[in-house]
Amino acid sequence: MSGRRGPDRGPDSPRMWGGVFEQGPSEAMKALNDSLPVDLRLWRQDIRGSRAWVGALRAAGILDPDEESVLLDGLDRVARRLEAGAGVGADDEDVHGLVERLLYDEVGPLAGKLHTGRSRNDQVVTDLRLWCLGALEDTGSAVRGLGRALLAQARAGLDLLLPGYTHGQQAQPVRWGYVLLAHAWPLVRDLRRLEGARQACAVLPLGSGALAGSGVRVDRVALAEALGFSEVTENALDATGDRDFVAEVLFAVTMIALHLSRLGGELIIYNASEFGFLRLADAYATGSSLMPQKRNPDVLELARGKGGRVLADLVAVLTVLRGLPAGYSKDLQEDKTHLFDAVDTVLVTTTALAGAVETLTPVPERMLAVLEDALLATDVADLLVGRGVPFREAHGIVGRLVRRAEAEGGGITELEPDVWADVHPMLPDVMGGLGTFEASVERRSVTGGTARRAVLDQIEALEGIFGV
Amino acid sequence: MSGRRGPDRGPDSPRMWGGVFEQGPSEAMKALNDSLPVDLRLWRQDIRGSRAWVGALRAAGILDPDEESVLLDGLDRVARRLEAGAGVGADDEDVHGLVERLLYDEVGPLAGKLHTGRSRNDQVVTDLRLWCLGALEDTGSAVRGLGRALLAQARAGLDLLLPGYTHGQQAQPVRWGYVLLAHAWPLVRDLRRLEGARQACAVLPLGSGALAGSGVRVDRVALAEALGFSEVTENALDATGDRDFVAEVLFAVTMIALHLSRLGGELIIYNASEFGFLRLADAYATGSSLMPQKRNPDVLELARGKGGRVLADLVAVLTVLRGLPAGYSKDLQEDKTHLFDAVDTVLVTTTALAGAVETLTPVPERMLAVLEDALLATDVADLLVGRGVPFREAHGIVGRLVRRAEAEGGGITELEPDVWADVHPMLPDVMGGLGTFEASVERRSVTGGTARRAVLDQIEALEGIFGV
Amino acid sequence: MSGRRGPDRGPDSPRMWGGVFEQGPSEAMKALNDSLPVDLRLWRQDIRGSRAWVGALRAAGILDPDEESVLLDGLDRVARRLEAGAGVGADDEDVHGLVERLLYDEVGPLAGKLHTGRSRNDQVVTDLRLWCLGALEDTGSAVRGLGRALLAQARAGLDLLLPGYTHGQQAQPVRWGYVLLAHAWPLVRDLRRLEGARQACAVLPLGSGALAGSGVRVDRVALAEALGFSEVTENALDATGDRDFVAEVLFAVTMIALHLSRLGGELIIYNASEFGFLRLADAYATGSSLMPQKRNPDVLELARGKGGRVLADLVAVLTVLRGLPAGYSKDLQEDKTHLFDAVDTVLVTTTALAGAVETLTPVPERMLAVLEDALLATDVADLLVGRGVPFREAHGIVGRLVRRAEAEGGGITELEPDVWADVHPMLPDVMGGLGTFEASVERRSVTGGTARRAVLDQIEALEGIFGV
Amino acid sequence: MSGRRGPDRGPDSPRMWGGVFEQGPSEAMKALNDSLPVDLRLWRQDIRGSRAWVGALRAAGILDPDEESVLLDGLDRVARRLEAGAGVGADDEDVHGLVERLLYDEVGPLAGKLHTGRSRNDQVVTDLRLWCLGALEDTGSAVRGLGRALLAQARAGLDLLLPGYTHGQQAQPVRWGYVLLAHAWPLVRDLRRLEGARQACAVLPLGSGALAGSGVRVDRVALAEALGFSEVTENALDATGDRDFVAEVLFAVTMIALHLSRLGGELIIYNASEFGFLRLADAYATGSSLMPQKRNPDVLELARGKGGRVLADLVAVLTVLRGLPAGYSKDLQEDKTHLFDAVDTVLVTTTALAGAVETLTPVPERMLAVLEDALLATDVADLLVGRGVPFREAHGIVGRLVRRAEAEGGGITELEPDVWADVHPMLPDVMGGLGTFEASVERRSVTGGTARRAVLDQIEALEGIFGV
Repeated sequence: MSGRRGPDRGPDSPRMWGGVFEQGPSEAMKALNDSLPVDLRLWRQDIRGSRAWVGALRAAGILDPDEESVLLDGLDRVARRLEAGAGVGADDEDVHGLVERLLYDEVGPLAGKLHTGRSRNDQVVTDLRLWCLGALEDTGSAVRGLGRALLAQARAGLDLLLPGYTHGQQAQPVRWGYVLLAHAWPLVRDLRRLEGARQACAVLPLGSGALAGSGVRVDRVALAEALGFSEVTENALDATGDRDFVAEVLFAVTMIALHLSRLGGELIIYNASEFGFLRLADAYATGSSLMPQKRNPDVLELARGKGGRVLADLVAVLTVLRGLPAGYSKDLQEDKTHLFDAVDTVLVTTTALAGAVETLTPVPERMLAVLEDALLATDVADLLVGRGVPFREAHGIVGRLVRRAEAEGGGITELEPDVWADVHPMLPDVMGGLGTFEASVERRSVTGGTARRAVLDQIEALEGIFGV
Repeated sequence: MSGRRGPDRGPDSPRMWGGVFEQGPSEAMKALNDSLPVDLRLWRQDIRGSRAWVGALRAAGILDPDEESVLLDGLDRVARRLEAGAGVGADDEDVHGLVERLLYDEVGPLAGKLHTGRSRNDQVVTDLRLWCLGALEDTGSAVRGLGRALLAQARAGLDLLLPGYTHGQQAQPVRWGYVLLAHAWPLVRDLRRLEGARQACAVLPLGSGALAGSGVRVDRVALAEALGFSEVTENALDATGDRDFVAEVLFAVTMIALHLSRLGGELIIYNASEFGFLRLADAYATGSSLMPQKRNPDVLELARGKGGRVLADLVAVLTVLRGLPAGYSKDLQEDKTHLFDAVDTVLVTTTALAGAVETLTPVPERMLAVLEDALLATDVADLLVGRGVPFREAHGIVGRLVRRAEAEGGGITELEPDVWADVHPMLPDVMGGLGTFEASVERRSVTGGTARRAVLDQIEALEGIFGV
Repeated sequence: MSGRRGPDRGPDSPRMWGGVFEQGPSEAMKALNDSLPVDLRLWRQDIRGSRAWVGALRAAGILDPDEESVLLDGLDRVARRLEAGAGVGADDEDVHGLVERLLYDEVGPLAGKLHTGRSRNDQVVTDLRLWCLGALEDTGSAVRGLGRALLAQARAGLDLLLPGYTHGQQAQPVRWGYVLLAHAWPLVRDLRRLEGARQACAVLPLGSGALAGSGVRVDRVALAEALGFSEVTENALDATGDRDFVAEVLFAVTMIALHLSRLGGELIIYNASEFGFLRLADAYATGSSLMPQKRNPDVLELARGKGGRVLADLVAVLTVLRGLPAGYSKDLQEDKTHLFDAVDTVLVTTTALAGAVETLTPVPERMLAVLEDALLATDVADLLVGRGVPFREAHGIVGRLVRRAEAEGGGITELEPDVWADVHPMLPDVMGGLGTFEASVERRSVTGGTARRAVLDQIEALEGIFGV
Repeated sequence: MSGRRGPDRGPDSPRMWGGVFEQGPSEAMKALNDSLPVDLRLWRQDIRGSRAWVGALRAAGILDPDEESVLLDGLDRVARRLEAGAGVGADDEDVHGLVERLLYDEVGPLAGKLHTGRSRNDQVVTDLRLWCLGALEDTGSAVRGLGRALLAQARAGLDLLLPGYTHGQQAQPVRWGYVLLAHAWPLVRDLRRLEGARQACAVLPLGSGALAGSGVRVDRVALAEALGFSEVTENALDATGDRDFVAEVLFAVTMIALHLSRLGGELIIYNASEFGFLRLADAYATGSSLMPQKRNPDVLELARGKGGRVLADLVAVLTVLRGLPAGYSKDLQEDKTHLFDAVDTVLVTTTALAGAVETLTPVPERMLAVLEDALLATDVADLLVGRGVPFREAHGIVGRLVRRAEAEGGGITELEPDVWADVHPMLPDVMGGLGTFEASVERRSVTGGTARRAVLDQIEALEGIFGV
């Protein structure tokens, strides 16, 4: 019972185009072309945009008050039918055709006035921008949720010391809370990018018609206000073929996905039994079908892997845009699949990762157990510098000290004082004043450093951003 | 009613792991982790692999004949239930868990013997390779279908002349059939790549266990034969973490998608009214919701745009593979979404494009109308060469000839003989012997050239490959 | 004789690390690892950052005034040597090692004090952010230059009418200036993104040390001011492993590259002789080695093609970031190659395209010649709507009108009045009041439409942004 | 003095096109358009192809024997000049123009006969295919070199036991040699793909002219033989615009790069001191500018990171191909940058990684130290299966056993027999027969398993492929 085969849209043969065609689309063509399975998801935005358009047509004198009221009522009824599932499995070409067909059902030929001065070209991009505005808000909430989970663990882990790593190698001692905050600050940048993307989305294209501006002189600024946009687009040909805002949303969520992948990737390592720094809650671990003892960090691996997926969604849309002329081309239809997939993926991944972070248990004794005293090497060099040795020379001295300790099979603090003296005469004194890992961590009290106060400052700043 | 929450798999609490866990997965974790909505599609392969595995366990003495028969019957019943939709909306973690749970339903605790010596790690990759083998066959058929459509038009268009283009500019006259064949030969390379991918897929991983080889000494070569594989994998750690075959299938279908995009992109240009070289059938054209006169080539634009999508699927999987250790990591779960999407997209696009090509109508009078006589410039240069002028000098002479004609506002053949002579004394003679566009086309009779015989040779060679 | 092989850095064996090593790097390792051929380009930033660091060490009491003065003088001399080519072909590991080695040459062991409290990890990312700030400014200038070229052509082409296209098909009549502006507005969005990227770059990481904050309590806010940054980073582990700012610059330039590709792609079509809407200046066209008559739009094709290259640079960096732990990993070294390549490519392409746009000549007679009267179809429908026909019904009527005209082999305005009446009784009147293409263009007077005043408004707004 | 500015190519103003142009290219245009800095690298191939073309023109009667001999001698002299650096910094548009200009220098106007019947379109793609054939050979050698390094370590590490990992977690005990072989088998697939790419490259396009076939009836099969190709292309329009072979080479090297990234990624983990399974030789490790004790695995991180770069090269070329019409478009010029970069990157990375693998030292005591007895869990389940317990039930029993051991803070083998019995009555017996890790490893004797004989079989098979 395809609504697309009849000659012209009408109560019993609704479709949005056709007068010029003698024959309807082939099955192979419909299979490729119809987008309803993807864009049905936009029905709320489509109804909302259509309601605003009815108001604009009324203000422009195209509709009289009675017609306006009948159409608004009709759109309400259409919304209720769609809420109840009327769109699932429908044979319409797209969500715009579906909504118009249902409106014909409800109000008859008057439905045919709704599309006056409007094109699917400005309609779809209005719907999509509305959808993005909602999606960005949801994504921001999820990101702040993960931020709060990191903050809670960071506060609890303020006094747990462990090795800090560069190149996957122990480098200097740090606080567990400090490491977690290194994954929280990227989320602050994400929130900034989400806000940038929001501004990019909040520009109304409705009233652009197909490419040259609407033939009806509607008040586009009033339309923008009615729909919650802050600006209106300034060139209809650009407005209908522009998908920069989609790219910008995709870039913002790709960066989030990459941050999730970095957090996931790092926690996978800490979760390996050789590190043993943390234990995932049962609710966020998985087992093996073959090996009964396994507790796998699937949530972390998926957070790592999904980065590739979301990145690919960005690549898809950017690739499609390359070389397209201004104005609408059907290639642009690809935008929605990738936009929806990327946002969905980031939402579900952020939420699961927040749960995993919130419920993980750090294992302080493992963190301490692996700390090697070579991590104090930079401190030794700094202390030599304090005694007037140029840093680069101090660096060389400590390098030889470490090699000596390796040769003797122990740590640099475990060598005999005469061995220290043999490496450099100042070393016995310096090694005596070296102090603990805690002292080392406190020595880096510069903004952004590992000292307790510096880390607390970060926590407080982030609580202002993510909430407590 | 999740089957995953009970302590151990059994008739009423089936799941594939759990003994070591005190608590089941959280909802957020399940939303991220469960793959059934994607991998349900593999149930036929999962059943087929399981049937073969039952045979292998029987041969290895793990199952007795009665058990074998009960399990095979049970798997048949499970297949019938899945055929009837039993998997849709199920709460299982993945298709392997679903099949095992249903098998418990059918045969009771004996189902618990099926997974002996097998892991989901070798199971999923066996299922996926089986799926690929089928998908490659389907894709090859679709590609040959498009090849036949191009061949039919090429044969019909053997004698239609039009400009050949480089840089989007008229270059030399060619045959319409010749242009179409330039899009058929890439499909021959595609078929070769599909065959390469098939060989890459036809290697059996079953028997690899989780990472170290099955604990049961099954006959893997017999298993391979039973399932239609030509080889067995040689290192279980590699076999379970290897997705090269997925990448290879994705690369092969990406190249097809790019070829479709090139064909689509070129036909879009020819379909513009300024060219007007062809007309799409109504069944493969679309209209505008606003502009009543429009006949849009959506099918061609989608063919062009889908290239970006399939390419992104390839990027996703390649990105996920980067940096992963050998053996199974959960990141690999991403492979299926992209593999399925890419193959589906290429199948539907190839089929629709084949229909569009088959039903398009060339417009010979437009092709002839736009042919400019400057297209004979290379012929003029070649004729000068025939009289002993070095080619590079001849090239310069003809360049000046063209500039002279442009200045006079006509074609090079329309200049007066004394103007020809003024450019170069040999030109009057040469221009006299220049002949028609047909003569020009026939002049390129080398293999791969535009001469009628050379094009017929191509058609015959391609008919041997695509069928008639 | 490599300066990297000696045991410790000193006047004759300078290198930045080594004490712990018994042996220097192999040739194969150096070939992979050394980054000087790429990062030499950062020497100005490295010197500038080092000068500021000298000041910070002086303020922190690590250097006395004499030492400060010797080091600053030494750095000046190093800068002059590098300006003169001292870095080309050098065997140092990277630009930081090169600068330090040259400084040893100039000032002796005192050079060894410069690296106090600093790591290459915070140094390189400071250099890179400084470089980005300059690159963003250059890119903005180039973009505004292209914007001005478009504006100049748009103003000159305000009254040239041509078909506007959607789906590569004639859709409605528009102004040539309007089409050009559709490519100017994306540049406004680009400028906004460049500004966003600038803010992302203007955060100082210096003082972060290797991962845990500098061991010297330097005044990082003063450092930021000295170097022109607006903020300081807040977590040293994040700061040293963060490349979000690189990704953001790359995304911004990728969007520019895609806009160039869209402009190039559209002009290629208009430049085809079948369209013939424009002619490139000789200075921006190229010839063929074989075909003497060819005038190829290589500049436009390269603008189209480079989009793929810049996009790939973005992909490279995003891919590398996926899954990396916080803090510095050597994988990050890949960032510079792609950043430099993308910015270089966009600069050279934008500049060449601006030249091509500035010097192209539109061909108004060709634009008019191809205008089909079916482009007035939407106007006919709008006029029917003005008489109370619901739009969707009007759309169907006009579709039949177009089909009728096609059947008769002419335009809709060329049919006999009784044929109009046969299609719909209102048509004879409506067709009589239809008017010219100019009238159609003026009918779309909404903001963003094609009416003269609306287009002038755009031009004036853009002049405020790009300059005149 | 640019050879491109004169009116026509000749002894003192050589360029390949120009007659139709009144003015030479602008500086901005040259900066974008000229490809010599990239394609100079093809000069050997260009000379080789030109020599063969001279022979073909002679056979076709275009050149007489004297001319042939002068041109061949001239090309030899050109080659010597290029060998001596004559191309560096030259102002020619591309390598083809450079070679032709130098040939004019050497032999005068006769040089103008060389380009007869040839176009840069078929010339460049011939050069590029020749280059690829050499590059594939070099890449194959490098891959086999890495394969031999892995084999040598694998043979030496045949009897070293360590945990095998899935999901980054200990799973089952394996041999060190077995783990290394899991990274050798992917190289076998790489060699197969390189061979596939070689076949794709070994098809001669020369004789295709610009798009329609050469105007000279040359013997293309003889040309193919002379240049070492196995086939000739079959449609000139396809042949000149086809870059499938570039994509295929790029895909093959991308897969290699991903394999290197997986090997690098895994070794980074084993190299962390918490694992401590291996130590890199000094010649393949790097130090820190700040932290004197650091020994960083830069070579491994670069191997991991370069995967992103090479993947991006593939993306660039695939993106550029999308939507291009058949025949040559200038967009295709982008192919070389990415092809060269990818091959160079893979060669240098493979070689360095081979050196790192060859010289690393495994640390058997660390491998043993971390082996947890929970790794025997699958063996316990298998032994229960041997006593008739269905596997899934056995899996649950062992899960509870592991949980019990965790609760008591020890291993499953360390529990008291009555605790075993409490979990399941069969366990005391089963645990008694469990045996060592060695026994576990030997239990997996299936093809591809961890048993000594199975691993030796792999080594022998690989020695046949990589050489010893």
